[in-house]
Amino acid sequence: MTIDLRSDTLTQPTPAMRQAMAQAEVGDDVYGEDPTVNRLQRRIAELLGKEAALFTPSGTMANQIAVGVHTSPGDELLCDANAHVYVWECGGIARLSGVTTRTIHPRSPQGGPGLLSLSEVEGLIRPDDGHYVRTRLLCLENTHNRGGGKVHPLEQVRALTAWAKRHGLATHLDGARLFNAVVATGVPAATWAEGFDTVSVCFSKGLGAPVGSALVGSSETIARAHRLRKLFGGGMRQAGILAAAALYALDHHVERLADDHAHAQILAEAVERNPHLKLESGPVETNLVWIEVDPSFATAAQVVRRLKEQGVFVSALGDQVVRACTHLNVSTEQVRQAARLIEQLG
Amino acid sequence: MTIDLRSDTLTQPTPAMRQAMAQAEVGDDVYGEDPTVNRLQRRIAELLGKEAALFTPSGTMANQIAVGVHTSPGDELLCDANAHVYVWECGGIARLSGVTTRTIHPRSPQGGPGLLSLSEVEGLIRPDDGHYVRTRLLCLENTHNRGGGKVHPLEQVRALTAWAKRHGLATHLDGARLFNAVVATGVPAATWAEGFDTVSVCFSKGLGAPVGSALVGSSETIARAHRLRKLFGGGMRQAGILAAAALYALDHHVERLADDHAHAQILAEAVERNPHLKLESGPVETNLVWIEVDPSFATAAQVVRRLKEQGVFVSALGDQVVRACTHLNVSTEQVRQAARLIEQLG
Amino acid sequence: MTIDLRSDTLTQPTPAMRQAMAQAEVGDDVYGEDPTVNRLQRRIAELLGKEAALFTPSGTMANQIAVGVHTSPGDELLCDANAHVYVWECGGIARLSGVTTRTIHPRSPQGGPGLLSLSEVEGLIRPDDGHYVRTRLLCLENTHNRGGGKVHPLEQVRALTAWAKRHGLATHLDGARLFNAVVATGVPAATWAEGFDTVSVCFSKGLGAPVGSALVGSSETIARAHRLRKLFGGGMRQAGILAAAALYALDHHVERLADDHAHAQILAEAVERNPHLKLESGPVETNLVWIEVDPSFATAAQVVRRLKEQGVFVSALGDQVVRACTHLNVSTEQVRQAARLIEQLG
Amino acid sequence: MTIDLRSDTLTQPTPAMRQAMAQAEVGDDVYGEDPTVNRLQRRIAELLGKEAALFTPSGTMANQIAVGVHTSPGDELLCDANAHVYVWECGGIARLSGVTTRTIHPRSPQGGPGLLSLSEVEGLIRPDDGHYVRTRLLCLENTHNRGGGKVHPLEQVRALTAWAKRHGLATHLDGARLFNAVVATGVPAATWAEGFDTVSVCFSKGLGAPVGSALVGSSETIARAHRLRKLFGGGMRQAGILAAAALYALDHHVERLADDHAHAQILAEAVERNPHLKLESGPVETNLVWIEVDPSFATAAQVVRRLKEQGVFVSALGDQVVRACTHLNVSTEQVRQAARLIEQLG
Repeated sequence: MTIDLRSDTLTQPTPAMRQAMAQAEVGDDVYGEDPTVNRLQRRIAELLGKEAALFTPSGTMANQIAVGVHTSPGDELLCDANAHVYVWECGGIARLSGVTTRTIHPRSPQGGPGLLSLSEVEGLIRPDDGHYVRTRLLCLENTHNRGGGKVHPLEQVRALTAWAKRHGLATHLDGARLFNAVVATGVPAATWAEGFDTVSVCFSKGLGAPVGSALVGSSETIARAHRLRKLFGGGMRQAGILAAAALYALDHHVERLADDHAHAQILAEAVERNPHLKLESGPVETNLVWIEVDPSFATAAQVVRRLKEQGVFVSALGDQVVRACTHLNVSTEQVRQAARLIEQLG
Repeated sequence: MTIDLRSDTLTQPTPAMRQAMAQAEVGDDVYGEDPTVNRLQRRIAELLGKEAALFTPSGTMANQIAVGVHTSPGDELLCDANAHVYVWECGGIARLSGVTTRTIHPRSPQGGPGLLSLSEVEGLIRPDDGHYVRTRLLCLENTHNRGGGKVHPLEQVRALTAWAKRHGLATHLDGARLFNAVVATGVPAATWAEGFDTVSVCFSKGLGAPVGSALVGSSETIARAHRLRKLFGGGMRQAGILAAAALYALDHHVERLADDHAHAQILAEAVERNPHLKLESGPVETNLVWIEVDPSFATAAQVVRRLKEQGVFVSALGDQVVRACTHLNVSTEQVRQAARLIEQLG
Repeated sequence: MTIDLRSDTLTQPTPAMRQAMAQAEVGDDVYGEDPTVNRLQRRIAELLGKEAALFTPSGTMANQIAVGVHTSPGDELLCDANAHVYVWECGGIARLSGVTTRTIHPRSPQGGPGLLSLSEVEGLIRPDDGHYVRTRLLCLENTHNRGGGKVHPLEQVRALTAWAKRHGLATHLDGARLFNAVVATGVPAATWAEGFDTVSVCFSKGLGAPVGSALVGSSETIARAHRLRKLFGGGMRQAGILAAAALYALDHHVERLADDHAHAQILAEAVERNPHLKLESGPVETNLVWIEVDPSFATAAQVVRRLKEQGVFVSALGDQVVRACTHLNVSTEQVRQAARLIEQLG
Repeated sequence: MTIDLRSDTLTQPTPAMRQAMAQAEVGDDVYGEDPTVNRLQRRIAELLGKEAALFTPSGTMANQIAVGVHTSPGDELLCDANAHVYVWECGGIARLSGVTTRTIHPRSPQGGPGLLSLSEVEGLIRPDDGHYVRTRLLCLENTHNRGGGKVHPLEQVRALTAWAKRHGLATHLDGARLFNAVVATGVPAATWAEGFDTVSVCFSKGLGAPVGSALVGSSETIARAHRLRKLFGGGMRQAGILAAAALYALDHHVERLADDHAHAQILAEAVERNPHLKLESGPVETNLVWIEVDPSFATAAQVVRRLKEQGVFVSALGDQVVRACTHLNVSTEQVRQAARLIEQLG
């Protein structure tokens, strides 16, 4: 039997979640008449301390809508060079919004990509001169996928958003895995969201819903986001089927992220015990384990293949980089088994 | 109790459809691993006689992806001035693809917007000269929503697509309600799709699924469409939940569109018996009844309000234009009751 | 010797204009330091009764900047279907600004394309609903090239701009040939420009300068236009060389447009005397003579070829449509000769 | 009297150049009928060893057209983080072409921004996966403005373009100051241009023409570039006036760039003798002198102000960074005087 650690997007809806979907009260959300979507939107807005929310078919759409509502074509956004919104969203920033990205390359103290800090953005706002783009938006990501699943420390986030506000920049948080940060730190979602104009959260990663994200912000911003969602093709009809799963996930799958984090620690220890592997960005904080493979030992692709032969699926995300990810479809027993195999790789 | 004739997008999933969703086998469709999505894509491609298909969260996204794959920025598409892709998709053609739209204004012989014919497009391809856009794409719509739900006659469609091919234009069919044309004429979907490079169909209109459309075309085209879907934010995870409903709809809700069409006839007769109303585009052919209100009698908004007071919901889509739409959530008895009220409006 | 009536853009700078260029005081206009450009910008702003002006390398750029400063991607502009900004600017509206164009098809009473009137735009503003584009800009053209070089009657223009203002639309006038309207009517340029937020004028058509147009408007609008000019690649260095020619043209070539208009009358009379030809849009008002060729007599291309053999160059701009254009490089004697040949075509 | 070292774009046309302009044979270049433009285009294409060329109103337009012809929206280009095309062209890459920029941060061995080398781009092509942009274009700049006016070593350039070709990337050279590289090294322009699909060169920098750049490439590429030039608003009429100056510059102002380079050395020595200043990127190779100001001494703005009081104009291009630039309007005597003042700054 397979132990699939490639991604937390792979989760299957549980029987109870399926039942919630099957019984969802629905309406036409393009008319604003889906009661379950409306309930989800109110719930997530409240959780994040914002006025309004918008349900979207993907996290990519939630992020790209945020870029669109905060900028005009010819503007610039700042983000780290490994941000999902820049790397894994197919160049949507430029194509959908005509916006230039200025990337910053933070390194974690242990190697591997790190998290943005204030000193790295200071001075990056372009002068007010017709030759330059207008710097308009700062995007952060928390927890940071490529940054090793690390939690962006609250004080660092606050310093960055305060700096942005002082300079008239809008701020967006890609919170696809924000609930992992909430559970890992005990800091409430609304506190994490505080300094941001918009925040996206994803229901189909660790929370285990099949489909959907949300963008939250002020009522005025979300009204404009609504228009862009329609334009991007994200207006769905009886989306309450999907929203019901997201509501179920908020009720039942948030606290259990602690299990995923504990599981990731088990994997991390196995990595540390294997002399050919190391944790690419230092200690594991949430559910993602980014592993650097010693090139004298093997390539990432070889590691993936060898683990696959033994029933453990992980992802190669670089020549020497492998990612393992814990989620609600892998049990403690399965994680222990995967850890044993990782430790014994040699 | 209400009789909601505003749109065929308002349908509630039936208990059996909900059960199909609840039991759907799913996987992560971003990884291409959702068996139900894959099954739906094969099924709809085959039905339409094309190599491949792509499931999308909306018909708007399916159409806008089609525009994107057939054009480059600075190109032009031809469509009638009432086409959904031009009027009801928020200007996506220009914003998402940088494409200019050239609109043609056909009139139906009975008044009201009509369907495009060959003589109206002949001569419209811009000369090959640096001053002009490059004319690259012809978009048709069948059945045509704003055109009174009319079926675009097959010979007319074939003449148009043949003309487009002769001049090197790509062709896209917005087939959001193509199955209404299939049922109304007995002409199979693949025959309707024949001359087109791409066709979109919608599962959440008359077919009654909660969410989703598909774009079909050659394997090469759909591979490029896949990329654009991701970029537009339409990549969903366990989308098999939604695809299961669409498959169910294809099995159980196609033939019954004949009931909707018969119901629309009942409404049409009521309109014709009311001296203050007329069928805006002549005889009703499918499930849409577009009604022109005599201005000396009332405005469209007044008609909507008066019917609403009596429990019948229709849409005002112009100062003097009302649309009523039959679908699987309105029974013959309800349609008769609505018809009586429409006939008696005075 | 050739008589070139293809376009008023073909004019050669006169010796005196060349001398003005050769002696122009110049500086780096990207730094705002070209005294001649600055002088031209003040002069043309004043002439048109606006606060500020921007010199551009072409009328297309001036128009496209105007579209860009008045809209956001996803917005819509209204113009007639034969407007230069829509037809002859390569689809820039969609590609450069992501803006949708809604075209109106006015006919002149005598046939041929006509000029927009209030009743044709009323009701065209899209409802405030997420399905639709936001209608944001009305573009007019005066004199109207494809409309037969006709002057847009002042009352009609005022009714249109007042309507636009009442509905919150911005207004732009493509005044490439505005000085022809000024000279033909005696109505000052500032009066024509009054109701518009921005106006473009061209120095390299009837005015005879080699290169350049200007966009005028409020200081705030022109500041934003300045940025777009740089982005579109229209920032030139010692552009005073070109501005000197434009200033010379404003001093010496405005009033003489009356000669071009008189010359066009001579050609128009010749057309009317030839039974195979007719004035496509009725009486000629300025320097453009649009001619419809009887298809039983010849095609436009044949007419062009036959006149060319006799030394007269005109343009075929449609299967049966020919345009002749008078300008400062054709003398009365040459025009009389061309008129004789046109009259005798048979 | 002022000694203006802010930029080599500030040059005044010489009397002989003005005479060449005044006597230029011209035509309407939008019709392709300007003999002087055609002559310039043939000349520069030949000089750079390419099939065809296109005259443009600015270097920004030449570069942005190159980006447009080599990419589709959603693609990615690679360039260094200080490239003109990315930093000083107002975000046109994203707005005009929907293209994402991936920036690389080379450092020169002496500090300051450096020139790209092969090892820095290897591995940067995105995997062929729907999540990522398609990497399509490599842009280099030679000499490199922000890189201290340095010549990109030929072997390094060849390694980069060969790598690009091997991986199916198009290549563009921003050669705004390519003739400075030619004169500094003796390597002919065509050799520098060899590995590139397109090259832009500027006539209004060191060459001293008032306005204009050119883009060169294959006939097919330039045909497509022609279309984009029109769309961007760069189609000019009797542009031969400007082309005549460019031709004059090619005849008379290329070899004399050696004087500018010698002058820059004089300034560089002065910088090195001043303990508060240093050459930001090491030895000066052409006509640009980038200077780092010791923060304990003064800010860049203070240095600019103090030199200005003494009649020497330089540019502050960073908090502690000043640029001085030699060109044909500054004599050896003036350079010596400026050098004295720079040396004595204290």
